[in-house]
Amino acid sequence: MSQSPIDGVDIARLSTLQADFDHRLAHLLAWEGVSDAEVQQRVDEILAAVKARGDAALVEYSNRFDRLAVASMAELTLSEGRLRQAFEGLPAAQREALSSAAERIRAYHERQKPASWHYTEADGTVLGQQVTPLDRAGIYVPGGKAAYPSSVLMNAIPAHVAGVREIVMVVPTPDGILNELVLAAAYLAGVDHVFTIGGAQAVAALAFGTETVPRVDKVVGPGNIYVATAKRAVFGQVGIDMIAGPSEILVVSDGGTDPDWLAMDLFSQAEHDEDAQAVLVSWDLEHLQAVEASIARLLPTLERAPIVRESLARRGALIHCRDRDEAMLLINRIAPEHLELSVANPEGWLPQVRHAGAIFMGRYTAEALGDYCAGPNHVLPTSGTARFSSPLGVYDFQKRSSIIHCSAEGAGELGKLASTLARGESLTAHARSAEYRLKP
Amino acid sequence: MSQSPIDGVDIARLSTLQADFDHRLAHLLAWEGVSDAEVQQRVDEILAAVKARGDAALVEYSNRFDRLAVASMAELTLSEGRLRQAFEGLPAAQREALSSAAERIRAYHERQKPASWHYTEADGTVLGQQVTPLDRAGIYVPGGKAAYPSSVLMNAIPAHVAGVREIVMVVPTPDGILNELVLAAAYLAGVDHVFTIGGAQAVAALAFGTETVPRVDKVVGPGNIYVATAKRAVFGQVGIDMIAGPSEILVVSDGGTDPDWLAMDLFSQAEHDEDAQAVLVSWDLEHLQAVEASIARLLPTLERAPIVRESLARRGALIHCRDRDEAMLLINRIAPEHLELSVANPEGWLPQVRHAGAIFMGRYTAEALGDYCAGPNHVLPTSGTARFSSPLGVYDFQKRSSIIHCSAEGAGELGKLASTLARGESLTAHARSAEYRLKP
Repeated sequence: MSQSPIDGVDIARLSTLQADFDHRLAHLLAWEGVSDAEVQQRVDEILAAVKARGDAALVEYSNRFDRLAVASMAELTLSEGRLRQAFEGLPAAQREALSSAAERIRAYHERQKPASWHYTEADGTVLGQQVTPLDRAGIYVPGGKAAYPSSVLMNAIPAHVAGVREIVMVVPTPDGILNELVLAAAYLAGVDHVFTIGGAQAVAALAFGTETVPRVDKVVGPGNIYVATAKRAVFGQVGIDMIAGPSEILVVSDGGTDPDWLAMDLFSQAEHDEDAQAVLVSWDLEHLQAVEASIARLLPTLERAPIVRESLARRGALIHCRDRDEAMLLINRIAPEHLELSVANPEGWLPQVRHAGAIFMGRYTAEALGDYCAGPNHVLPTSGTARFSSPLGVYDFQKRSSIIHCSAEGAGELGKLASTLARGESLTAHARSAEYRLKP
Repeated sequence: MSQSPIDGVDIARLSTLQADFDHRLAHLLAWEGVSDAEVQQRVDEILAAVKARGDAALVEYSNRFDRLAVASMAELTLSEGRLRQAFEGLPAAQREALSSAAERIRAYHERQKPASWHYTEADGTVLGQQVTPLDRAGIYVPGGKAAYPSSVLMNAIPAHVAGVREIVMVVPTPDGILNELVLAAAYLAGVDHVFTIGGAQAVAALAFGTETVPRVDKVVGPGNIYVATAKRAVFGQVGIDMIAGPSEILVVSDGGTDPDWLAMDLFSQAEHDEDAQAVLVSWDLEHLQAVEASIARLLPTLERAPIVRESLARRGALIHCRDRDEAMLLINRIAPEHLELSVANPEGWLPQVRHAGAIFMGRYTAEALGDYCAGPNHVLPTSGTARFSSPLGVYDFQKRSSIIHCSAEGAGELGKLASTLARGESLTAHARSAEYRLKP
């Protein structure tokens, strides 16, 4: 395969046989969402202003950045009644689909809840961990064209299942435009407060608290570069989920899946935005060519064809590899956000998949099912961060406390050990504190 | 109680009866470990230099900052033989104590391992999560006076238990001084590579990789402001654990524990460094005064008396509260790193403790036991971050992949739902990708 467009489809064709394949792959995957010094400085200013002046700063920034004309935070606050109204106003089919999706997401996340545990040693000493929810979680929901009700469900339901007492949602309303589906999803997911604020100022409000916005313990949810920069800056004062990059999919096909299905799977990723990445890997060259033909034929039929075309040209790829083993190497090298194993025996592949956000197994599991309603979370580690991070989950809204309860006998045994080690570190008050508890 | 020194002990005396108690408490707890613009800029330069020039930059910075005169990374690399030699060279008592501690830490963390799970729905669809270890973990160990072998065990053993393939440790050696106990602990804990580098340059080496230092997936371990700033900067390229503040303890006493024991428990925290925080809460005023007398009597007998005196004066406090309920409010308000429940029935308190890094229960459980050998991790969330974070654990060295395997029937049902929701979000390629899998 060459890298030039064929049949009007502009997408990179790579082969692991190419001498410079590693270099090409690295170039394809490269993504740096770094904020420059100017963004950093503007964000620092916004954070400081909200910290110092609270609601007044929120009102000013919202008027300026979202082109509003509000006088107070009361106008940037939505009541629970307003959320219910949005939910009840939806067409029945949408209301039912949203409810069913919420139910499935809830059921899956219920299975994810970690339990407190402890064990007792022979001398009566008890060790363990107590799992508790966060008091308050803040959920950032982007406004405008990227406002997705499914994201509200995916962020808020795990918090709710975790037992978080108060869920605070922020969503900007550029030019005053509210998304009814987003509000309906907030109602369904058990969100307690909604403020129509966004940007770095919303992150600041959640992290520091203002007269109106309660301070939360963790801020989750995607946003633009200002939101991401603000999250990085407040990390430590509050928890944050992750700094998300563009969405991506790696589809591995053994040649047995309908090429039209695979083309549409790649499109479903590419239609998100121009930076989204859709990559197909196969060792069947004829099959890759058939998918390419499907792409060429189907692309013009898409509502979001211009975005898809741009995304495939910029960041898409069809990769021909030698065999199954090489495909597996590519999976673990790429550590994709979404991995579609469109192969005959996906269970056989699973034990070797070391890094992937979510794994869609078999020919029937379109990635789109996971985006909406299969149950697992669609907030996933991007840009290779599946090497070290996990899908958003109940565990993100809980934390653990270690439990240590020494019996008198246990304290005697452990005290001797601790005393020796503490003296080795020249921490003699540690040693003496342990020695007091030794049996006489 | 007043805030002026009595009997030569300079420590704040607070009471919840004071009109300005909330303000005083906030002042006591305030801690901002922020890096200024100058530190930020120096760290950015170091990160860029190591990224661009790899080993050469590491050698230069190590020579400059640690006052060394090495020519290559070979001189900054320790062999496995060198680690074994350190272990075998320890006095028998220390070697045995370190081994026993490692064994107990390992046993506790084995119980912490999360398991993969899945379930099958009525139509044959399988959902779940697969848990996998990180490929490589990097452990930062401070050099000089803060080099603690126990920290090596606490950071490396959870990684080892998690199944991490390669554990890379960095430890600076200012003026060429190696700590034998630290090397021995690395040997015991199963560390694979040790490089004697530190500071922001060591964090950069772990995050980006160099010719000699392998790139890791996560960097854990405490360090100075340069290390903390570098970790914040590389977060996203690699995982990081947390940005740690000074260590702290909150002791709650019902009046029934020997005042000398409690004084020594407070000292064991305060002796870490001048910023460490030791706070005692009780509703028994006479008991508080007795502890104060113990502090005055015992402080001069401490090896690290000057550090303890300074720490208590700067950040310590004795807090008198009304009753047990108010003590519980204080616990959850402070969200302490270490909580000592020196009370008659600590089990009765546990369900109400919402935020604490580690809970030391009963009169016999000195915090020092947890620092060394009880089993649970001593790397704990500081500065109130127990509101949203957990002790370092096996889970920090693992991640999860969602599993979705739809049956043909399941894909049909879910496809209809996904199609409706995707069309609601105007993502029609998502809808069509799902619709292909509907049964005809």
